[in-house]
Amino acid sequence: MSQPLRLGIAGLGTVGVGVVRILRKQAALIEARTGRAVTISAVSARSRDKDRGVNLSDYAWEDDPVALAKRDDIDVFVELMGGDEGPAKDATEAALASGKDVVTANKAMLAMHGQALAEQAEAAGCLIRYEAAVAGGIPVIKTLTEGLAGNEITRVMGVMNGSCNYILTRMEDAGLPYADVFAEADGLGYLEADPALDVGGIDAAHKLAILSSIAFGTQVDFAGIEIEGIERVSIEDIKAAADMGYKIKLLGVAQMTGRGLEQRMQPCLVPDRSPLGQLAGGTNMIVLEGDAVGQIVLRGPGAGEGPTASAVLSDICDIARGWHGPVFGQKASTLTAATSAMSQAPAAFYLRIGLLDKPGALAKIATVLGEAGISINRMRQTEHRSDHAPVLIVTHKTSRKALDEALAAMSGTGVLASDPVALRIEDL
Amino acid sequence: MSQPLRLGIAGLGTVGVGVVRILRKQAALIEARTGRAVTISAVSARSRDKDRGVNLSDYAWEDDPVALAKRDDIDVFVELMGGDEGPAKDATEAALASGKDVVTANKAMLAMHGQALAEQAEAAGCLIRYEAAVAGGIPVIKTLTEGLAGNEITRVMGVMNGSCNYILTRMEDAGLPYADVFAEADGLGYLEADPALDVGGIDAAHKLAILSSIAFGTQVDFAGIEIEGIERVSIEDIKAAADMGYKIKLLGVAQMTGRGLEQRMQPCLVPDRSPLGQLAGGTNMIVLEGDAVGQIVLRGPGAGEGPTASAVLSDICDIARGWHGPVFGQKASTLTAATSAMSQAPAAFYLRIGLLDKPGALAKIATVLGEAGISINRMRQTEHRSDHAPVLIVTHKTSRKALDEALAAMSGTGVLASDPVALRIEDL
Repeated sequence: MSQPLRLGIAGLGTVGVGVVRILRKQAALIEARTGRAVTISAVSARSRDKDRGVNLSDYAWEDDPVALAKRDDIDVFVELMGGDEGPAKDATEAALASGKDVVTANKAMLAMHGQALAEQAEAAGCLIRYEAAVAGGIPVIKTLTEGLAGNEITRVMGVMNGSCNYILTRMEDAGLPYADVFAEADGLGYLEADPALDVGGIDAAHKLAILSSIAFGTQVDFAGIEIEGIERVSIEDIKAAADMGYKIKLLGVAQMTGRGLEQRMQPCLVPDRSPLGQLAGGTNMIVLEGDAVGQIVLRGPGAGEGPTASAVLSDICDIARGWHGPVFGQKASTLTAATSAMSQAPAAFYLRIGLLDKPGALAKIATVLGEAGISINRMRQTEHRSDHAPVLIVTHKTSRKALDEALAAMSGTGVLASDPVALRIEDL
Repeated sequence: MSQPLRLGIAGLGTVGVGVVRILRKQAALIEARTGRAVTISAVSARSRDKDRGVNLSDYAWEDDPVALAKRDDIDVFVELMGGDEGPAKDATEAALASGKDVVTANKAMLAMHGQALAEQAEAAGCLIRYEAAVAGGIPVIKTLTEGLAGNEITRVMGVMNGSCNYILTRMEDAGLPYADVFAEADGLGYLEADPALDVGGIDAAHKLAILSSIAFGTQVDFAGIEIEGIERVSIEDIKAAADMGYKIKLLGVAQMTGRGLEQRMQPCLVPDRSPLGQLAGGTNMIVLEGDAVGQIVLRGPGAGEGPTASAVLSDICDIARGWHGPVFGQKASTLTAATSAMSQAPAAFYLRIGLLDKPGALAKIATVLGEAGISINRMRQTEHRSDHAPVLIVTHKTSRKALDEALAAMSGTGVLASDPVALRIEDL
């Protein structure tokens, strides 16, 4: 294979520019490694005139990404526009229809339309590669699909949104409330144009949906994920968790259970000395568990020009080397429809309860928990505030159903100053 | 590709049996993922009659691994015998000469003969895959060769021998001297038949030599590695390091410098809160740094039946899927001969010095360091022992050359009760 591999790149934001930079700077290295030159034939972006700090004059320009995707002088369509619908999806479909391979960083598109796109690609004999869609520079798609191919995967976990992890870490370090740190992160440009994608857990859940499909041989099932964002994580909870040896992380967990595929993305407590607990700032971490390998932990930058472009280049180099294979680790036609299971596996929970200053208040709470069959592992009541007494409880393992019943019963006791906070404690 | 991929497996120790077990248990999963059946045609081991707890009656038996490697009914020769010379190498060469692909876990063979074997394989149009040769179940070969293919690699580091890490961790946890823990580990079967391969740093250095070749495009250069084992790491040093916020790890480091390839495998101090510092027991950790991606950390089991077999299966599944590529990330003919550079990059050092109880002893040591241009970052003298006073010093960054000069000068002062201990402190 001595013909150059010719790319068409749609989207020249941070990642697109990063890809162009690497292809220019490392052309010789990439050719030595893949055995062929990798060249850019044409590019497309919203504004042609914007100065992006990189020389684009060697490449043909297309205003329309669909036209770019169909060009005869490209072998691979590199989709770096983003968005689950619209131009990204139109152009991806056009590329596949024209027999081009696709490399994309678009987690939303794959989470929402991954099955249909995979079916189209495989029917056309084309590839879709998307290492950059999950966990930035960490080669987790490759590790899961290829590196652990001999394993039955038992669980996938991870911190997959660096912005959320930055916010939670910064809240703890600076002792600041959520709203202040959110505003700070937004000002620093750490959040998506629609910040709810980050802090609402949507972006991380898109990533989890993709990993689940590969891990468990199921069709991507974003709708089946229980999602809870970090908007309601308070500095009080972060401090209380720290006092008891935990960190709060926006943690994604996917596992196959007897009742179906359990997928959740929610704030959880993890031991502060565990690898996940130690993860500070914008770094991502993915934990992969397989029946043969045990546990593999991958840690690295989850975003940014260099790391994300590195992942895109990994896909491009694989294609240049002649890699081929199905989109989600096995043929799309063989992926089963996921039966989504709510998380009923027993877990320990952290509860923060504000009690009114009434005699017997604590006893009432303890009674409610006991009646729901929930036993208390640790409890502490801290000093009274003006209007209430904060009580922290770590339960022994219980079902979410029993906990929800107990929380409902608590609200009827008349001793609560506010709604209790309940966060899962994840076994690592 | 609907023909089965047919294996011949030579070596039925822990790893070989693990591979057979996975192929039997996960046959359907592997076929779904690779698109073809993976079968075993024949096996070979030293003793045919040994009960290995796995049914081998479906497979032809060969007493001679070379005969196995040449069989017409195998596509891939799976070499799990070990040893850098002898049957493993003979059979690998025979397999390549017969046009078979090779999957091996043999780090010693690749470290000593990797270049010649790669040249033979590539001339024959065959593959050599060896994910299991480095860091057990961690897919580090794949990550480095494929996942980071768009990066100029700047540094590779890691804890690559679980037995050494177990010994060092156990010494600290139990407060036991090296000899006691060594005997314990040997009794538990944690060490190679020749324990010097583990504790002498040889096994880990074999792995580092392989990673260096892929990372820097150089021919495997085991002889160019500065190797120091853990035999002289004392419990005193582990305790003193811990007091100052460090852990002692047998750390491999490879980086390309202006003077050539620097490769070392030696006990180093790392910050106790860093991912490497937190690594306890037999777990491995590899740190990969690239110009685009920044830093990626991989953590997982470095040995054992399941993890190592998982890595072997990764290679087998890749071949079943049609993977092809050069052995060390680029064609063997394009790998450059490594110019090995002694580590002259400045580093901070930890010194433990036993001083005789003489007036002015400490001043003499401080003067020697000052005259060598080495400035002291931290110094503490702990309580006198019967015959000497232990002094701990952390230097500012200095060259190994200046340090060696200072150590030589110290021995002439007449105030030393014993040879000083000097360990590098690694920047992470």
